[in-house]
Amino acid sequence: MEENKKAVVLLSGGLDSSICLYKAIEDGYVPYALCFDYGQRHVKEVECSRRIAEKAGAIFKKIKIDLRQIGGSALTDDIEVPMGRKMEEIARDIPPTYVPARNTIFLSVALSFAEVVDAETIYMGANMIDNPGYPDTTAIYIKAYQELINVAIKKTIKGGKIEIKTPLIRMTKKEIVEEAVRLKVPLELTWSCYLGEEEPCGQCDACRLRAKGFQEAGLTDSLCHKSGSDV
Amino acid sequence: MEENKKAVVLLSGGLDSSICLYKAIEDGYVPYALCFDYGQRHVKEVECSRRIAEKAGAIFKKIKIDLRQIGGSALTDDIEVPMGRKMEEIARDIPPTYVPARNTIFLSVALSFAEVVDAETIYMGANMIDNPGYPDTTAIYIKAYQELINVAIKKTIKGGKIEIKTPLIRMTKKEIVEEAVRLKVPLELTWSCYLGEEEPCGQCDACRLRAKGFQEAGLTDSLCHKSGSDV
Repeated sequence: MEENKKAVVLLSGGLDSSICLYKAIEDGYVPYALCFDYGQRHVKEVECSRRIAEKAGAIFKKIKIDLRQIGGSALTDDIEVPMGRKMEEIARDIPPTYVPARNTIFLSVALSFAEVVDAETIYMGANMIDNPGYPDTTAIYIKAYQELINVAIKKTIKGGKIEIKTPLIRMTKKEIVEEAVRLKVPLELTWSCYLGEEEPCGQCDACRLRAKGFQEAGLTDSLCHKSGSDV
Repeated sequence: MEENKKAVVLLSGGLDSSICLYKAIEDGYVPYALCFDYGQRHVKEVECSRRIAEKAGAIFKKIKIDLRQIGGSALTDDIEVPMGRKMEEIARDIPPTYVPARNTIFLSVALSFAEVVDAETIYMGANMIDNPGYPDTTAIYIKAYQELINVAIKKTIKGGKIEIKTPLIRMTKKEIVEEAVRLKVPLELTWSCYLGEEEPCGQCDACRLRAKGFQEAGLTDSLCHKSGSDV
């Protein structure tokens, strides 16, 4: 049954998670794209996620879990999103866009879903190189989560396996953009901006990091024309 | 500020979690009772949870997260709840009332909430002695979750601490009932039955375990008159 092996892919609709979806397909998995409508500032990324999953031929699953019930972040509360920060500022500290335990919640739901659909892998676009501020995107975090999985669910304690794969974790943004090109990810469908306006703002951390990646890879981002060359 | 230390208590409205709430208070914490409306078979336990929190003077927080979006359990799907099972059957295997990764999801949300309200402890009524079927109530599971917490959130990677406490984990149901009596837990407000009828059914695993505890402690459960002495 090797041909029918399944993977759950955490698909936010951004660049990194979209690459993971295409990587899962390249790796031979039947992909289940899992997207969260969590009360983020805009649902544009949910729509992007749906379109990318469709384009890739993945099964699309949207989960509603309103993290505004908990709050504590610029992405779910009325807290300002930082704009125009330079790379060294982005790297320096945990930004207000940090959502308390968000990836831990998302991975938990992904784990539950993976057990129900009998997937053996969870793909996640975590990256610790160019955006090291978040605690829940590091290799040490993923390792701890894997060890939790190994004792947490019916499937694993019965001898089965669910493995988290984070193919981008040690890549630079340049390498990530190159990987997207190699995998023919529909970049024009991906959405990285923290705001949900018609066009990407070009100034939030997510836009700045994306622009850095495209610039260093020597490519033009057809989606965004606002970022200058001062990233 | 030792007097203002806070704890999040996972409060389902059942016996075990209610004891945890009273234990947290005995231990000197300002208690935040966290209850999940997760699409379980009935919301009676949510109402019980609210009343117990009120009685105990705890802050009550209800989180809605519909696990029927994922399914895979007799508690969230149209799968039959086993009735009239003997203790050795209950102990033998993971029952269909197992909800995939439920406690992992609940702990993740509790972790997020604990970080937002700046609590240093999470109380959870996990117990591995009389109901060993569930994977996510064991000491090894809690230890793995604790190790995840230590690297997962802003607070912990900045040197802070959030500790999971499971005071009942190695108690028998008899000891649990005795602890409830010692702590003056309002037993008549607690709800253990998996079904949500006017009175507890007396036959589901949760009712059977509760009856066993009361019987062995030599006490009468004012809530339930249906369980026989054949537990």
